[in-house]
Amino acid sequence: MDIVVEVHKKTAARLAADMVQNGMVVGLGTGSTATYMIERLGERIAEGLEVLGIPTSEDSARKARQAGIQLTTFAAHRHLDLAIDGADEVQRGPLNLVKGLGGALVREKIVAQAARKFVVIVDGNKPVDHLGQRTAIPVEVIPFGWESTADQLSQCGAKSLHPRMDRAGHLFVSDNGNMILDCNFGPIEKPDFLASQIDSIVGVVEHGLFLNMASEVLVATEQGVERWEP
Amino acid sequence: MDIVVEVHKKTAARLAADMVQNGMVVGLGTGSTATYMIERLGERIAEGLEVLGIPTSEDSARKARQAGIQLTTFAAHRHLDLAIDGADEVQRGPLNLVKGLGGALVREKIVAQAARKFVVIVDGNKPVDHLGQRTAIPVEVIPFGWESTADQLSQCGAKSLHPRMDRAGHLFVSDNGNMILDCNFGPIEKPDFLASQIDSIVGVVEHGLFLNMASEVLVATEQGVERWEP
Repeated sequence: MDIVVEVHKKTAARLAADMVQNGMVVGLGTGSTATYMIERLGERIAEGLEVLGIPTSEDSARKARQAGIQLTTFAAHRHLDLAIDGADEVQRGPLNLVKGLGGALVREKIVAQAARKFVVIVDGNKPVDHLGQRTAIPVEVIPFGWESTADQLSQCGAKSLHPRMDRAGHLFVSDNGNMILDCNFGPIEKPDFLASQIDSIVGVVEHGLFLNMASEVLVATEQGVERWEP
Repeated sequence: MDIVVEVHKKTAARLAADMVQNGMVVGLGTGSTATYMIERLGERIAEGLEVLGIPTSEDSARKARQAGIQLTTFAAHRHLDLAIDGADEVQRGPLNLVKGLGGALVREKIVAQAARKFVVIVDGNKPVDHLGQRTAIPVEVIPFGWESTADQLSQCGAKSLHPRMDRAGHLFVSDNGNMILDCNFGPIEKPDFLASQIDSIVGVVEHGLFLNMASEVLVATEQGVERWEP
């Protein structure tokens, strides 16, 4: 763990948590940066803030409960006022994202899409010129026939792909009971085109390309926090 | 149950089963017509035919075992020689299909797509001029946030939609652990456009529009069996 990077993540996360207003329904992201946001939201709730949270994973649900955040569901609230989450890559300019290295991409995307405003919090290592430049694109797939689904992802240009494993060395299972294939496409020139190709593959549940979704990105570096809008 | 229709389904199903050749890997469909095909394949195996089957549902796996069909998986065979399945609607001309009223659309689609040849067996009630004319389009969705996913399906033109229930009156759960929303679009003018719209909705796993997939459709009526090719 790089302590300086952790300080930056925390700075961006606290700033985002401070955008939450009384009475809001808030989407709670997953991952190390989102965890700082959940902790800060807990502090504000202890000070009197009233909010409802919709978590993007079992893990963030647990952390939210620990922080004293009251949870709700889509059955009660179809729209969220605000969703806050981290990202693995942010493309400078359009602010397209790669997300899902934490394994929660489907719920994260459902929550982000249902939110009026989607705020992304990252440290200075996450901005890139082209998505796929540093990270693999996670693709959640149905376990049945995943070998065939993998073949089709290769045909879309994945140079290599690896089924995600858990820490015990078994196949990773998502909160939705599916597998994740981490697909290395290299730098992606046309993310919209690739996204629609992947969407059309039978067996794919969802992929980690979050295009035209971010309302605002907070980037924390040694120089402070920059606010980017698309 | 209409006995005449059942006879027609059985006629088409037996004809399809008789297309299977020694040594083939065969995709085994789900539903009443496919069941007749599985039974006929069992008879041929008793007579000495050697094949391996990949079932499209837990239900067809059970029926295949009862019929004495040896099963295999995508781990052993990425490509199938032939897949045989029923359909809920067949569009005259391009032979696009609606499938999934049996609840197995995702595995059916994975198997059909991985097959070199996909043969569809129907009775004379299934052909239509426009898909969606008689049946709802089943859409398999992630249970998390399905209310929000349903909103987006409405925005794509679904006039009404209903979560599929099981016989006990509970929410139907697919073999993949997901829900099915039966979406009434009415007659669909541009199935390709609708399919790509639905594919792009976050929370959708797969839909029942099977476009440009059928190699051949066997339609059984009182006049006999017609063979249609796209």
